[in-house]
Amino acid sequence: MTWIVTPDHLDALEIGAGILGTGGGGNPYLGKLIARKYVEEGAEIAIVDPGDVPNDAVVASVGGMGSPTVSIERLRRADESVNALRALERHIGKQVTHLVPSEIGGSNSTTPMVVAAQCGLPVIDGDGMGRAFPELQMETFAMYGVTPTPAALCNHHGHIAIFDNIADATTLERYARAVTIQMGGSAGYAFPVMTGAQVKETAIPGTMSLAIRLGEAVLAARRDTSNPVEAICRVTGGVSLFAGKVVDVERRMTGGFARGVVSLEGFADHAGQTLRVDFQNENLIARDGSGAVLAVVPDLIFLVDSDTGAPLTTEVLRYGLRATAIGIPAPAELRPEVGLRFVGPAAFGYDDVAYKPLPGSYANREAGTRSS
Amino acid sequence: MTWIVTPDHLDALEIGAGILGTGGGGNPYLGKLIARKYVEEGAEIAIVDPGDVPNDAVVASVGGMGSPTVSIERLRRADESVNALRALERHIGKQVTHLVPSEIGGSNSTTPMVVAAQCGLPVIDGDGMGRAFPELQMETFAMYGVTPTPAALCNHHGHIAIFDNIADATTLERYARAVTIQMGGSAGYAFPVMTGAQVKETAIPGTMSLAIRLGEAVLAARRDTSNPVEAICRVTGGVSLFAGKVVDVERRMTGGFARGVVSLEGFADHAGQTLRVDFQNENLIARDGSGAVLAVVPDLIFLVDSDTGAPLTTEVLRYGLRATAIGIPAPAELRPEVGLRFVGPAAFGYDDVAYKPLPGSYANREAGTRSS
Repeated sequence: MTWIVTPDHLDALEIGAGILGTGGGGNPYLGKLIARKYVEEGAEIAIVDPGDVPNDAVVASVGGMGSPTVSIERLRRADESVNALRALERHIGKQVTHLVPSEIGGSNSTTPMVVAAQCGLPVIDGDGMGRAFPELQMETFAMYGVTPTPAALCNHHGHIAIFDNIADATTLERYARAVTIQMGGSAGYAFPVMTGAQVKETAIPGTMSLAIRLGEAVLAARRDTSNPVEAICRVTGGVSLFAGKVVDVERRMTGGFARGVVSLEGFADHAGQTLRVDFQNENLIARDGSGAVLAVVPDLIFLVDSDTGAPLTTEVLRYGLRATAIGIPAPAELRPEVGLRFVGPAAFGYDDVAYKPLPGSYANREAGTRSS
Repeated sequence: MTWIVTPDHLDALEIGAGILGTGGGGNPYLGKLIARKYVEEGAEIAIVDPGDVPNDAVVASVGGMGSPTVSIERLRRADESVNALRALERHIGKQVTHLVPSEIGGSNSTTPMVVAAQCGLPVIDGDGMGRAFPELQMETFAMYGVTPTPAALCNHHGHIAIFDNIADATTLERYARAVTIQMGGSAGYAFPVMTGAQVKETAIPGTMSLAIRLGEAVLAARRDTSNPVEAICRVTGGVSLFAGKVVDVERRMTGGFARGVVSLEGFADHAGQTLRVDFQNENLIARDGSGAVLAVVPDLIFLVDSDTGAPLTTEVLRYGLRATAIGIPAPAELRPEVGLRFVGPAAFGYDDVAYKPLPGSYANREAGTRSS
């Protein structure tokens, strides 16, 4: 199925991608504004089901790399990712035929929309994370065997960096991160290049439509004043973990990442209880007052405004916010051993925390469902 | 004039380039061994006068980037710079016709010889520094207007990084340095790409033959047991600054550089006096016991073994070595305001030190001499 993006889809995507950003991933708002402008001016952004992509399609992932903390201080020009894509095309000597988001959570959901509008390319309904993660090797593309290079970065000055002949995404992550930091902490990227067949084998399908459906559910709950937390849990397969008030936020920038801890004191059912969520761009682990783990990466942990269902990213957290913490089971692709090696608790330095899956399944998918 | 490199030339180059490395630049020994092997196996390395290079020649500079401290711990494979050159050629879609050293001091004197032997390309008799410097923007190529990109890096794993559309060498330096550090502190490079006409306008001519002549003079002094320090000063236009014993070396690795200070206590004429030389990969400033500046960058400051004339690089300095400190006037290209902005004392953080030129001229060249 192929469908055309409307301005309403983009408004819903902003909310859904914000939630799937699990506290990080960058703010999709700016990308949405730019994509909306193109759509309102007549650009047609086609969303294509992975199953409808030809096996020999030339697919590239596009997005932005860097710290969310930087990206809200220095706005992108909006041509960084397009310029990275053009540099990548020149390098491979081929035209890209389809785009795919690498990260449906946060700003990398709307950036491919902007590139699609600028280049007239379709966007595949799927991504490489089903959420947001801070590092490149945390994409299912790399996890399931796609070579991460050639890869291109471009910043707001048009400075280009191309990486090639690197088999290992963790190594590319180190190189690209080092250049991104030198570029000012924010760059557009284009990589990896895949065939349509590889996308079908490695992407998490249906996540663009999921994010839009999720945003639509939140907007509907606001309109009919029903409970947005229930709407989010219904669409995503998530569970409410905790409701309370933000009482402390520790935040520091190290190595290009926003790291920290947010603490909440409970309301109502959780009165007298506390919640502590560690984050590294994204939320990683939620613990109760006794230190017991309520949810842990790769399962999705995020805070929303309890009244509106608006996602609360780590950079907007501050004392006094009323928030509900929600956990969503990770996509099935991230839960086997191969996935946990790259995105389990140990991958983030929590060697002493075992992965304890939340009950249920991502977006209520049936076990073993691979294609949308 | 074009001439063919002999094994004896390479032995002399090792010594001459070591001296012109002014304490840094990396050890030319390994590159010499590899180049010698190729020459002994029949490779012909042609050295071409800049004046004989066609104006439309496609010239690339090749060498190694990184910290000398790393390069003596982890030997290069010897194909890093060739692989960088091949990546650069693919990127520009043209074959390079000539190589030029960017830095005649240290290992970047012999690395172009290795690449020349491997690729069958001639090497231009000149370079971009007339000595060694730690950073890219300190090349005369960039200083006098050559665009620094496209540029390619390659490490021992064959990992490729290409930079493009960067007008400013200081920016390229930041990006390339960050990647080199992530590559393990050592990489081969190929850049900038120039026309033959640009080389004639921007290179410091005749420095390859100067380095070889300098090494030959030291070797001759050893053979006839004459004073090697006098031989060095005669060929280079240098002056002896101090003779003494190394009594202290402070050394630390920061940001990919070997920084530190070496202190000497005087012998003979300098008995009771002290010398203190600050270095950042290369020696930057020599001060006497009162703190008065005896010589300062971009003038060349280096230590040699007082008996043999062997250059003492900063990484081999240790307590007890008997050394003579020599100062050589900087090449004329580095002394005008445009040069001092990039390689004067302030460029290394010595904002309070004025450049006080040593008397005489680099290699006893007549004032205003630009072509060899």
